[in-house]
Amino acid sequence: MSTGETQRVKFMLIGAGNVGLRFLNLVESKRATLRERLGLELILVGVADRSGVARNPEGLPVPEIVALKQEGRGVGEHPHWGVPSETGLEMVQAGGADLLVEASPANMVDGQPALACIEEALSDGMHVVTANKAPLVLAFPRLAELARDNGVQLRYDATVAGGLPAVNIGQRDLAVAEIHRLEGVLNLTTNYILTRMAQDEMSYEEALSHAQAAGHAETDPTLDVEGWDAANKLVILAHSVLRFPAKLDDVEVTGITGVDEEALKAAAAEGTRIKLVAIAEADGDRYRLSVRPTRLPADHPLAQLGPKQMGIVFHTDINGSISAAIVEDTPIPTAAAVLRDVGEIYASEGRI
Amino acid sequence: MSTGETQRVKFMLIGAGNVGLRFLNLVESKRATLRERLGLELILVGVADRSGVARNPEGLPVPEIVALKQEGRGVGEHPHWGVPSETGLEMVQAGGADLLVEASPANMVDGQPALACIEEALSDGMHVVTANKAPLVLAFPRLAELARDNGVQLRYDATVAGGLPAVNIGQRDLAVAEIHRLEGVLNLTTNYILTRMAQDEMSYEEALSHAQAAGHAETDPTLDVEGWDAANKLVILAHSVLRFPAKLDDVEVTGITGVDEEALKAAAAEGTRIKLVAIAEADGDRYRLSVRPTRLPADHPLAQLGPKQMGIVFHTDINGSISAAIVEDTPIPTAAAVLRDVGEIYASEGRI
Repeated sequence: MSTGETQRVKFMLIGAGNVGLRFLNLVESKRATLRERLGLELILVGVADRSGVARNPEGLPVPEIVALKQEGRGVGEHPHWGVPSETGLEMVQAGGADLLVEASPANMVDGQPALACIEEALSDGMHVVTANKAPLVLAFPRLAELARDNGVQLRYDATVAGGLPAVNIGQRDLAVAEIHRLEGVLNLTTNYILTRMAQDEMSYEEALSHAQAAGHAETDPTLDVEGWDAANKLVILAHSVLRFPAKLDDVEVTGITGVDEEALKAAAAEGTRIKLVAIAEADGDRYRLSVRPTRLPADHPLAQLGPKQMGIVFHTDINGSISAAIVEDTPIPTAAAVLRDVGEIYASEGRI
Repeated sequence: MSTGETQRVKFMLIGAGNVGLRFLNLVESKRATLRERLGLELILVGVADRSGVARNPEGLPVPEIVALKQEGRGVGEHPHWGVPSETGLEMVQAGGADLLVEASPANMVDGQPALACIEEALSDGMHVVTANKAPLVLAFPRLAELARDNGVQLRYDATVAGGLPAVNIGQRDLAVAEIHRLEGVLNLTTNYILTRMAQDEMSYEEALSHAQAAGHAETDPTLDVEGWDAANKLVILAHSVLRFPAKLDDVEVTGITGVDEEALKAAAAEGTRIKLVAIAEADGDRYRLSVRPTRLPADHPLAQLGPKQMGIVFHTDINGSISAAIVEDTPIPTAAAVLRDVGEIYASEGRI
């Protein structure tokens, strides 16, 4: 895809936690690959976390930033480039980058501070890649319009089902299709719990604590187990792939807390599996959206998913039924999906 | 993706058979969708089959061409625009189009006449979308270089596993990944036969004749059942996704004719399934390539494939293990993959 020349891209990063830090590690470890395959050189010029920002218009030393975070310190504490008094938004407002990577924690109440940072970046002509569901669930149409009006790209494949290219397949490979039904196992925590309960005859509590120990569930798993995380992802798919401007309120949501061992056993005895399935079903020019524990026949592509898998099925008019799944043992594929989005922006800009 | 303006793209089509004709039907039935979603208007200015060509620089009436073919006649016989004395290559040489869609039958001996048409088109600055494996298997490096040198795109997602976006996922979603192992059920005929033999306890001969009756196998199924079709697809994946310049000779090939009902029963008794699996396994900076009947554990993503499915699994360093599968009841998804490639060329050109 490279045209022989190397394109130098200055980027800022908001959020240096689970995804952000792994993304920085990938930027560093994949430096040669990015240059050779995509003709891309990524230069970190600013990074923000709760401690403030670190910034240098000529480029920050990525390994030093990573090391600082791994010591449990904040980027604002960097001896040369740290600015503890500055916020991520102020850093974006100051400009000086081509691309914003937004990977701060999802704030489902008002999307802040991510939403303001993304709006500022798009308005200022920066491309944006985000791993943060909240701004998209709360303000998809406005952000899409801002990107269009400013001639920049907004990409967010990492927000839906980790490293599974669900948005990408839907937007690109099914660009001309009508999708009459979409089904997804979009939340890792609940799939881990249900699958372990069924396979290993664990109680819900046991499976949850295993998930937490393995890093597949939060300390407070409410958003996951009550189905809201999957519902958020379904809203993003509705906007981006189904061209249906859904709100979270449009999704009928039932979590997995009511699924007991008896129900799982009964399902297995009939050769079926219970999964938490997010479904969009075409209904005239609308879609009916739901997230609920669903019995799937054993040969359904989503029935087969193991505890560390997520998956999606698109039923279409002209592209057949296409399914995709990912095995995600670590959070690296989610960070790699952010990097993939970055690569795709510049590959599509420079594609010949 | 549309920027508001409609881009008029003149295209020529070589081959108006199974894929080519269905592609024309899709161009017609998806006209409004192409315009609304991609800002694309496709104008057929020339079409070639064995009877000659039909051409009109202002645009041919697609429904008339389709009707002519459905009557069993050739495009050279079109009363106004038919030129029986002209070949597809001469039509391409005459120029006047932005895009060549090549969908003639695969000639695995020398790739002709498709290879010459594609070379001519690329050299002349036309984008090319092909559904024809032969030119790619025989001359991938030369064609890729021609496209690069002339600043045009060569796309071929429809050549590998019908409508499954195997090349697309590999090239785009795994652009920065190292793929250490790739496994694919890439041939529909053999998967249909093996799956029916196992599920319905048919003999090979019964399953083959069912496949032929359902249009899932050729009258002469040799290339499919002896594994060469899958091997060809593996060679294309090696070049395009693995960056490994393989030749057909590099693939160890065993077909399915030696798989009997006893072997399938024995496999099932142990909870495994036998599929014809194309495998690329990293070995230093090379890949070992093979196509052979392979026992898969029941929870392997490819083990679950039904008779009308194909699938692929990519095992990667940073993107986890990603699998994808398609249910393909008709040849329409293959034609839709050609249309998807066309759309992607202009979406990526105009993407903002």
